[in-house]
Amino acid sequence: MAEKPVKNADKRRNCVLNAAERSFVASGFHGARMAQIAKEAGMSPGHIYHYFESKGQIIEELIQTHFAEKVEMVEDIERAGDEIVDYMINNCEESIETNSDPFWSTLMLEIFSEATRSPEIASTLEYNDAKIKKRVVSALEKQLDVDDIEARLEVFVAILQGIGIRRIVAPDFDQSARVKIIRDVAEFLFRGDKNIQGASKAAAK
Amino acid sequence: MAEKPVKNADKRRNCVLNAAERSFVASGFHGARMAQIAKEAGMSPGHIYHYFESKGQIIEELIQTHFAEKVEMVEDIERAGDEIVDYMINNCEESIETNSDPFWSTLMLEIFSEATRSPEIASTLEYNDAKIKKRVVSALEKQLDVDDIEARLEVFVAILQGIGIRRIVAPDFDQSARVKIIRDVAEFLFRGDKNIQGASKAAAK
Repeated sequence: MAEKPVKNADKRRNCVLNAAERSFVASGFHGARMAQIAKEAGMSPGHIYHYFESKGQIIEELIQTHFAEKVEMVEDIERAGDEIVDYMINNCEESIETNSDPFWSTLMLEIFSEATRSPEIASTLEYNDAKIKKRVVSALEKQLDVDDIEARLEVFVAILQGIGIRRIVAPDFDQSARVKIIRDVAEFLFRGDKNIQGASKAAAK
Repeated sequence: MAEKPVKNADKRRNCVLNAAERSFVASGFHGARMAQIAKEAGMSPGHIYHYFESKGQIIEELIQTHFAEKVEMVEDIERAGDEIVDYMINNCEESIETNSDPFWSTLMLEIFSEATRSPEIASTLEYNDAKIKKRVVSALEKQLDVDDIEARLEVFVAILQGIGIRRIVAPDFDQSARVKIIRDVAEFLFRGDKNIQGASKAAAK
């Protein structure tokens, strides 16, 4: 029974975090007021400050939660061993789906925007991103004999993050056609032996 | 002399648009109030409504201006004729620089975020993006003998838009290393005969 109050406090914190996510997505980080987040979480406007002192603290914690989920993904990548490239390629579709989920991509856009205004948020993002990337680079280094793995991974991550934007800007474009090309690019980046159909008309003649 | 008032009105409108860009970047679309934009533009809070009825109208006009600049880029691409792929590859670095300029990428993140909340903004973005993409696809079709050009272009644009995010999240990473890989990927996508160093350690043994 001793743990119960702590668990309830955790539940309340999670409830606030979920409410904050919904509020940021609906109104933007700046548009969402603490009172609105409290209402969304079903608590009084004053009560929310018992758990979080500011929106900044909430967003910091959302970033931590997000990267904790990424750590699970990294552990799967590490476990793939010499099948790491296969794993990453086969996982492309799921990564693309996650990154282009409208709720998720809107929330991430809010976080990235806010990072350009708050050095604290920028540094939390940068620190966690670097930590995750380092582990993936280490795992890839064991299998790939190239010296620019980090740059390749940067571009691969840029695609996954950019595809969230494409889903907003071109929502009707066939997502499976994007997935196919991204898988080809992933093979090109991490295997290097991918051929894509690409004869120019002049060359074909 | 007859045109002068119009010109002055245009100047004032541009002044408001520039002030709005700075305000959106500094405070976010929702954080920037019309009064703040007016102050930034050096006019009275009421005066701004003489030019724009709402922030929504301002953001719509910013999107139009942005795509008008893209049209110039498309004209260069069209003029490249059978050197279109060379042109796109050689232009990679400039496109990457534009897309990862901190001011520019923050403004675009605000616009993309707002598109998830406003069907009008989403439809303006979608319409203009589709129009530009159609012209680039037509120009590429004349030179490439593949049936998935639009999907390739989607992924290429995802990289350019995603790289703006990478610059925020990993600001210290060597940008020239990213540029090199993106050029390789562009050659892979649009020429198809690009080889990237990529022997796996197992295969090399």
